[in-house]
Amino acid sequence: MEQDRIDAGPAGLRPGADTPAALETRRRIVETAERLFRQFGYQKTTVADIAAELSMSPANVYRFFASKSSITEAVARLLTGEIEEVAHAAATQPGLSARERLLGVIRATYRATVQRYIKDQRMHAMVHAAIDENWEVVKAHKAVILGILTELIREGIAAGEFRVEGDPAVAARCVQMANIATCHPLIIEHCLRANEDLEEMIDPMVAFCCRGLGAQG
Amino acid sequence: MEQDRIDAGPAGLRPGADTPAALETRRRIVETAERLFRQFGYQKTTVADIAAELSMSPANVYRFFASKSSITEAVARLLTGEIEEVAHAAATQPGLSARERLLGVIRATYRATVQRYIKDQRMHAMVHAAIDENWEVVKAHKAVILGILTELIREGIAAGEFRVEGDPAVAARCVQMANIATCHPLIIEHCLRANEDLEEMIDPMVAFCCRGLGAQG
Repeated sequence: MEQDRIDAGPAGLRPGADTPAALETRRRIVETAERLFRQFGYQKTTVADIAAELSMSPANVYRFFASKSSITEAVARLLTGEIEEVAHAAATQPGLSARERLLGVIRATYRATVQRYIKDQRMHAMVHAAIDENWEVVKAHKAVILGILTELIREGIAAGEFRVEGDPAVAARCVQMANIATCHPLIIEHCLRANEDLEEMIDPMVAFCCRGLGAQG
Repeated sequence: MEQDRIDAGPAGLRPGADTPAALETRRRIVETAERLFRQFGYQKTTVADIAAELSMSPANVYRFFASKSSITEAVARLLTGEIEEVAHAAATQPGLSARERLLGVIRATYRATVQRYIKDQRMHAMVHAAIDENWEVVKAHKAVILGILTELIREGIAAGEFRVEGDPAVAARCVQMANIATCHPLIIEHCLRANEDLEEMIDPMVAFCCRGLGAQG
């Protein structure tokens, strides 16, 4: 759509929309949208609702976001960014071995995902839409998590904890794929609905991955 | 629903519906349904369409299946059964090491899944419905694949190829989870739509899993 094209680009900004005041307004729109999505559901929330909540006209919201879909994308970025922060904090926790930090990353990501997307039934529709419509956000999120895992594995190799032949980035991709079940909202949702306990698999899976990374013991 | 309960149970059979002739009719209904789902799409195919294709009355089809949902469940069982056969054949291929057979299982499962569910756009809706509505079929399928992997890992341990501490069934569950991306239709669909090449990850992932199973080299 023409409107969506205007709002495209990595920063998702329209030309001239990057003044501090404009960025602040965008931030408020996105945070308000997220709150309304949680409160009333993604489908039922309209741009007019978001505008009303901010005492703005819908036309003013459209000055910052070309469509509801652009707002949804920004909400998806906000949520994936929060998960990335949680993962990064666990990956760089001081005083822990690479193995312990890997366990921390997987556990923290799982819990943050469950808390943000799964426990809140009203967020399911938004997550499905985000995954179905916003490939770029999902792709960027996976790349950030892959970067965090690659760095952690490099540190583990440097510390003599891991012995990886070949590219650490490929090993990181294996670790990331191996743990999809506990970080992909749709898989988590399916497993929980099927009464499968995913959390009990985190410890054995991380131990398995560490052996895959050449850790001894 | 009352109607669905009548048709429940492991074999999905109504009382007295297990004579050879009845089983043959059920088989023809399920195969016809699968063909029509592929040809016209799952949503557009009605029980009346299936009946007409078989020159039966809809009432006669309802003698064998309580609802379209029961037919869908049987189609899902047919498809997962085919994947299970492919996986079992690869797992028991003579003259190969456990490692080679594990690679064979993952590769064959991936290719069979892509061929059956992914390439055929019309099957997507059915797969989504099957996964969303038929937890029991999906659960049973996962249990069968887990059994195949557990047996394969036990054989690898017995042959001295793998060195697994603890329960081989837990190791098998790790291998199964680690390879979700290449056997779960929804994940495959998402990755292909995001232009990610999953097949190139099968070799490194199986090598990673073999290290996780204590294989040397």
